[in-house]
Amino acid sequence: MQYRRFGNTYMVRIDLGEEIMDQLKKLCEDESIRLGRVEAIGAANQAVIGVYDLETKEYHSEKINEFMEITSLNGNITEMDGKPYIHLHATLADQHHAVHGGHVLEMRVGATCEMFITVLDGEVNRRKDKELGINLWTF
Amino acid sequence: MQYRRFGNTYMVRIDLGEEIMDQLKKLCEDESIRLGRVEAIGAANQAVIGVYDLETKEYHSEKINEFMEITSLNGNITEMDGKPYIHLHATLADQHHAVHGGHVLEMRVGATCEMFITVLDGEVNRRKDKELGINLWTF
Amino acid sequence: MQYRRFGNTYMVRIDLGEEIMDQLKKLCEDESIRLGRVEAIGAANQAVIGVYDLETKEYHSEKINEFMEITSLNGNITEMDGKPYIHLHATLADQHHAVHGGHVLEMRVGATCEMFITVLDGEVNRRKDKELGINLWTF
Repeated sequence: MQYRRFGNTYMVRIDLGEEIMDQLKKLCEDESIRLGRVEAIGAANQAVIGVYDLETKEYHSEKINEFMEITSLNGNITEMDGKPYIHLHATLADQHHAVHGGHVLEMRVGATCEMFITVLDGEVNRRKDKELGINLWTF
Repeated sequence: MQYRRFGNTYMVRIDLGEEIMDQLKKLCEDESIRLGRVEAIGAANQAVIGVYDLETKEYHSEKINEFMEITSLNGNITEMDGKPYIHLHATLADQHHAVHGGHVLEMRVGATCEMFITVLDGEVNRRKDKELGINLWTF
Repeated sequence: MQYRRFGNTYMVRIDLGEEIMDQLKKLCEDESIRLGRVEAIGAANQAVIGVYDLETKEYHSEKINEFMEITSLNGNITEMDGKPYIHLHATLADQHHAVHGGHVLEMRVGATCEMFITVLDGEVNRRKDKELGINLWTF
């Protein structure tokens, strides 16, 4: 991973073999990023993406082990329990041009990932909603 | 719906059962937002998304009534006839990991929707283009 | 193509029949845009999108010749060899509501394309990585 800050925006290059969620958490800690918006494109060679199930309160996940274009990767950085909390959704196009999508549980870079983080001045925490089983923004 | 403003950016949480287009129109009216960019992720449990037909000048719409991840939700806020005009496109991943996409005619939140609105200082109106049958940005 | 600047953001309307990559390059040259983030929605009537193959170092491309909603179009403007370098990924929904996605090699507007370019103050160049065969951001 390499990055550079331009005003309120970080341009981040995540490299072949690096796991995106891990790298992003590390960046938030190193640069004290507490709140922001994330947008990226690139390529992955492994991804675990999920669709939530409100009944079981778990993600039904799909693991994909092939080279894919990251056609969109959007989400945000907030905080929970004093730590950076990364929430990303993705769409991916595989070698057969089939499109996959979901909540990102894990994603490993397949060539490069070109990410923009727009930092906001403030903080937003998350609190677990017991009925939904998910961690909601609290203002 | 709950929201908070950070500089030129609103972070908006739209809640279970709320219809996104309605909530966004209400927010624009309450906060006098006239121009902006919209980006969100989240989950929906009902959506009507369309693909335009230039011949009939109508949307061929697909109604989906199941829990889905909103893998991308992008668009903009402009004005038409003095009122906020919301234009959003979405991709959605359903329980079978199939991906749907189109112009958003209606979308109801299935768990939470995490939205960023970047407000621009100015105004852009729309005018109906008779040949296309759609409402174009006018500068 | 028509456009207007609001602060650090260009709102760009690309019109029926215009090719998006060409128009964007032209805009960057005319307005001396050297670095930025690109986000758009709209409709296309022709697209060539690819998925990269690390072995052959070429894009396996898919050419689609029908009216489609551009459900997401994200990417960035950097520079290479002193010229604007446009890198965009897209997802597209066709008339049968099937979703396509990949790296944009070519895309022609089918009705309108509504684009935001957020200009950053600085410059980022690309350099070809020989092992990957792709042009990486260099800081």
